[in-house]
Amino acid sequence: MRFTLGCELDYTILQPTTMILNIEAMRGSQQLVLSERLELTPSLPSERHEAKETSNLYRRLVLQPGQLRIRYEAEVQTSPKTFDPAGIPEVPVAELPLAVLPYLYPSRYCVSDKLGRYAWREFGDIARGHEKVTAICNWIFEHVDYIGGFSHSGTSAEDTFTERAGVCRDFAHLGVSFCRALGIPARFVSAYGWQLQPQDFHAVFEAYLGGRWYLFDATRLCPVDGIVRIGIGRDAADTAFVTFYGQVESAPKTVWIESLDGADPQLGWTTEAVSVSEV
Amino acid sequence: MRFTLGCELDYTILQPTTMILNIEAMRGSQQLVLSERLELTPSLPSERHEAKETSNLYRRLVLQPGQLRIRYEAEVQTSPKTFDPAGIPEVPVAELPLAVLPYLYPSRYCVSDKLGRYAWREFGDIARGHEKVTAICNWIFEHVDYIGGFSHSGTSAEDTFTERAGVCRDFAHLGVSFCRALGIPARFVSAYGWQLQPQDFHAVFEAYLGGRWYLFDATRLCPVDGIVRIGIGRDAADTAFVTFYGQVESAPKTVWIESLDGADPQLGWTTEAVSVSEV
Amino acid sequence: MRFTLGCELDYTILQPTTMILNIEAMRGSQQLVLSERLELTPSLPSERHEAKETSNLYRRLVLQPGQLRIRYEAEVQTSPKTFDPAGIPEVPVAELPLAVLPYLYPSRYCVSDKLGRYAWREFGDIARGHEKVTAICNWIFEHVDYIGGFSHSGTSAEDTFTERAGVCRDFAHLGVSFCRALGIPARFVSAYGWQLQPQDFHAVFEAYLGGRWYLFDATRLCPVDGIVRIGIGRDAADTAFVTFYGQVESAPKTVWIESLDGADPQLGWTTEAVSVSEV
Amino acid sequence: MRFTLGCELDYTILQPTTMILNIEAMRGSQQLVLSERLELTPSLPSERHEAKETSNLYRRLVLQPGQLRIRYEAEVQTSPKTFDPAGIPEVPVAELPLAVLPYLYPSRYCVSDKLGRYAWREFGDIARGHEKVTAICNWIFEHVDYIGGFSHSGTSAEDTFTERAGVCRDFAHLGVSFCRALGIPARFVSAYGWQLQPQDFHAVFEAYLGGRWYLFDATRLCPVDGIVRIGIGRDAADTAFVTFYGQVESAPKTVWIESLDGADPQLGWTTEAVSVSEV
Repeated sequence: MRFTLGCELDYTILQPTTMILNIEAMRGSQQLVLSERLELTPSLPSERHEAKETSNLYRRLVLQPGQLRIRYEAEVQTSPKTFDPAGIPEVPVAELPLAVLPYLYPSRYCVSDKLGRYAWREFGDIARGHEKVTAICNWIFEHVDYIGGFSHSGTSAEDTFTERAGVCRDFAHLGVSFCRALGIPARFVSAYGWQLQPQDFHAVFEAYLGGRWYLFDATRLCPVDGIVRIGIGRDAADTAFVTFYGQVESAPKTVWIESLDGADPQLGWTTEAVSVSEV
Repeated sequence: MRFTLGCELDYTILQPTTMILNIEAMRGSQQLVLSERLELTPSLPSERHEAKETSNLYRRLVLQPGQLRIRYEAEVQTSPKTFDPAGIPEVPVAELPLAVLPYLYPSRYCVSDKLGRYAWREFGDIARGHEKVTAICNWIFEHVDYIGGFSHSGTSAEDTFTERAGVCRDFAHLGVSFCRALGIPARFVSAYGWQLQPQDFHAVFEAYLGGRWYLFDATRLCPVDGIVRIGIGRDAADTAFVTFYGQVESAPKTVWIESLDGADPQLGWTTEAVSVSEV
Repeated sequence: MRFTLGCELDYTILQPTTMILNIEAMRGSQQLVLSERLELTPSLPSERHEAKETSNLYRRLVLQPGQLRIRYEAEVQTSPKTFDPAGIPEVPVAELPLAVLPYLYPSRYCVSDKLGRYAWREFGDIARGHEKVTAICNWIFEHVDYIGGFSHSGTSAEDTFTERAGVCRDFAHLGVSFCRALGIPARFVSAYGWQLQPQDFHAVFEAYLGGRWYLFDATRLCPVDGIVRIGIGRDAADTAFVTFYGQVESAPKTVWIESLDGADPQLGWTTEAVSVSEV
Repeated sequence: MRFTLGCELDYTILQPTTMILNIEAMRGSQQLVLSERLELTPSLPSERHEAKETSNLYRRLVLQPGQLRIRYEAEVQTSPKTFDPAGIPEVPVAELPLAVLPYLYPSRYCVSDKLGRYAWREFGDIARGHEKVTAICNWIFEHVDYIGGFSHSGTSAEDTFTERAGVCRDFAHLGVSFCRALGIPARFVSAYGWQLQPQDFHAVFEAYLGGRWYLFDATRLCPVDGIVRIGIGRDAADTAFVTFYGQVESAPKTVWIESLDGADPQLGWTTEAVSVSEV
C-alpha cells in the first residue's frame, strides 16, 4: 500500500531551546520511504540520528526565541506480509533471543510487574502465541473505554487498568504490560494511522512471536495494515513526537495520512482487532 | 586495584523454570576480569549473552525441579582514572551524542517526569556539571535515611522522594531521576561494592558529563573506586541479579568482595560521596 | 451466641509515648458486653472515650519508657437477626438519611472515586440491594488471593484491585470501595472473628441497605454471625487497634475468641460469603 | 466584617439525578448569616441537612432531565477574634479531646502517613504550636507553585509534595497532611474567599491549637479574616460543592463575595500568610 502522510507543528520558542523530534517514518524492509521532506520555517539546520537498536529517526533542533513551523511530508510504501494467525507460536523464554529481553522488563508506563497476578488469572489458560495476544487486545477493547482527553502525560498502565478509560497510547501501554507480565516481549509503536478519526498521531504495539515482531492495535480504530511506523520503544517515553529542553508554547497540530492506491479501506482489518503483519 | 569477589545463590526449583542471571563482572577498559568461574550444582549448561549496548553479561539457565546452587567467583582489576572534578562540565542537550538520549527518559523506577519542578528549584542554580551531580548526591545522603528493608520491589524514586527512606537501589534511582529531570543523562549500575557492610550486591549510578560516564554513590557506603560493575541499565528493571520465569524458592544469598593489594580502604572516597572515576 | 475473647499486646516503650487503643468490644443492641477487663502491667491509669458517631471505644494511655503489657478479655453476647436477603433493598441516594452520606465519600484506603467505571461495568446490571453487595463479595473472593503478608500499611483498594492479593483488611477496603462507587454507603469494621485461622484481629465491612447496616465478609474466613465488632469507620485509618505518638517496639500479639455455647461452627455462614445480620 | 456573597451554577440534567449541594454559608458564633436565599430554576423542593459533627449544610435535590439553575446569595457577618500567635500552644496528644482524634488520621487526599518522616525532619525542631503551623504555611507558599488547572480531582497531598504545584485545594491538603503527620489535628475548609482573584470557591485549612481551631491559608491569596466558611471536613471529599448521582453537564459557574463595610482590604492579612482567627 502507498500512503502520503505528514504533520505540521507550530511553536513559539520562548527561550533558547533544544528540541528532539521523532516524527519521520521509519525505514524497514516492509516500509519503504519513497520520498520525504522536512521543512523548517524559518529555515535552520537540524541533526539527524538513527538509533541503532530501533531504527527510530531522531532529529535535533537548536532553537532561538521566535516562531517555528515544522512541516513533514512523506510518501511511504508498506508491504505487510500475511500469515495464518493459528500458525504463530509463542517463543518460550528459554529460547528467546537474549537481545529481546529488555522488552520483557517493566518500564515507565508499562508496569508489568504489578499486573502479573491478574494477567495469569485472565490469560494464563488461553493458547500461547498469537491467540493469547489477540485475547489481550480483545480484552482491552471490551474493558477499557476510549475517551479522548481522559488520561494525561503521567498515566501508566496501572492507572488505565484501574480507571478503565484512556486513549490509543494507554491502550498500547496496557497491551504491552499484559504481554510482558506473561513472558511475551512487547514494545510500543508510535505511528501514522490511516483512517484514524480524528486524524492524529497514533499508538499501537508489537509482540514478539514465532521469531518476529507482530503488530497489534487494541483500539480497532484503523486497519493494522494502514499503520506507518514512526518510532519503536519500551513505551511512550522512548517515542515522544516532540521533546524540548527549554520553554515553548505549542499551537494545535495537524496530522494526516491518505492512501494513494485506492485500497479497500478495510483491508487487513479483522474483527479481532489484530492484524497478522510482520514488521 | 585488584579484587577477589563472588556470590553464592541457592534455589529450590519447584517447576520447569528459565532463569536469567546478571551477576558476572562486566568487562571494560578500566575493569579487567583476570579470571572467573561460574559453577552450577548440579552441573548443567548455560547460555551467555553480552548485551551490545551495555556490555551486561546475561546468563540463561533452563531448569528442571530440584536444588540449584550457583557459585560465581572472579578476580578483577580496576584502573579508575582520576580527574579534577572542577574540570568536568555538563554537556548541553544541544551537543549530547544522540545515542545517550534514552538515558534522559523516565523509566520504571526513575520517574524523572514527576520530579522536574523540584529538581530545577533545588539544583537549578548550582554550577552545571560534576558539581551539580555532587550536590544531588549530597542532597540524597542528607535527606534520605538508609534503612534496610524499608522499600520493596515496586518502590520508585517518587516513593523514595516522598517517604525519605530506602536502600542503595532507592538512592541510585533517586539520583538518576534528578539528573534526568535536569537534562543530564544518567543510568543505574549494579555492582560488587568493596567494604559495603553488611556484604551484599550494591547499586550506584552514573551521569554523563564532559563526554564520559562518571560514577556516583549517594549512599557513601563504600569508596567509589572499590566498585566493580556488574550491569548497567535505565534502572533496576534492566539489571536484576536474578529473574526467573517459573517457580522457585530462594535461600539467603552470600556476596563477597575483598581487596587483593592491601589498598588503603579510603582510597578514592571523598567527603562529598562522589568519586571522579571515568567508566 | 456467647463468646469469650481478648488479646494480649506487649510493648517496649522507648520514650514518653501516648498510645490510643481501639481493642474493646463495642456495645450495641445486638452485641452485649457481659463482662470485660482491661489489665495494664505495670498498672497505670487510662482514659476511655466512646465516639458519638460510631460508638467506638478508644482508650488513651500516657506512657513512660519501660515495658508495657496490655491484656483485654471480655465475655460478649451477640444476637444477630436473620433476614431474607431477597427482601433487602438498596436505598436510592434520593432517600438516604443524609447522616450516612460520609460513608459514600472516598477515604484514605477506599479510593472509590477511581473504581467507579469498573464497578458500574461489572456490577451495574445486578439487582440492586443485598444481591449486589453479595455479588461484590463473591467477586472479591474469586478474584483476589488471600496471602498473608502481601500488603503493607499503605496499601489501598486501588493497589489490591491491581495486584489481586491481600489480607482481610484489603478485602474489606475493596468491598467498601465498590459499594461507595455504586452509591451504596459502606464502612469498615474491625473485629474479633470466631474461627479465624490463624487467630488474629479481623476486618470486615458493612453496607447500608433497606435502612440498616448489614455485615459482609468477603474473605469467607469465619461465619459472619461469629463476628464481634470492635470499631467502625471509613476505613482502617479510623479503627487502628493501636496508634502511638512516640517510639515503641512491639512483640508478637495474641488474639483469641471462643464460643461459650457450643454453637455449630458453621452457624450463619453462607456459601455467598455473606451473612444477613443487622447491626 | 459584613459580606454579600453567592454563586450561580448551571446544569443540564441528562437523566434522573440526585444532587448534593454544599454551598451555603455555615452558621457559627463568629459567622452569622444575616440573610440568605437559595433559588432553584425551575422551582423544585430541596431537603436541607445540617451535619451534627461539622455544622456543614447539605442540600439534596432530586432532579428530572432538563435545565437547572442554582443561585445562592447571602449576607454574612464575621467576627474574627484576634490573638497573639506567640501565645497559642500545641495540645499534646496526651491532652487532646478524644473527639478531635479523627482529624489526626490520614484521609483520601491527606496521606499524612506517607509524609511523616519528611515532616519531622523539616518541622520537628520548630517551636510547637502556632509557630509550627505558620512554618508549614510558609513552606508551602515557598515550595509549591500556584498554577491554575495543574491538578485534577484525584490529586493527593503526595502528588502535590512530589510535583510542587497545585491550586488552593492542594495547598490546603498539604497543610492538613503535614499537621497530622506532626500530631496536630487539622481539617479542610471550603469557603468564599474575599479578594480571591479570579473569583471562585476557595479552600483553606484549620489546625487545632490551644483548645480551639485556627484558620490558615497557605496560598496567601486572600486575607484570612475575609474567609466565609462553607464546609469543614477531613479533606475535599467531605466538602464537595456539588456531588451528583446520575448524569449532568455543567456550564461555567459564577462565584462572588464583596465587603459591605468598606473594610481595609488588607485587614487581618499577615506576611506569614496566617491569621489568628478562632473559629
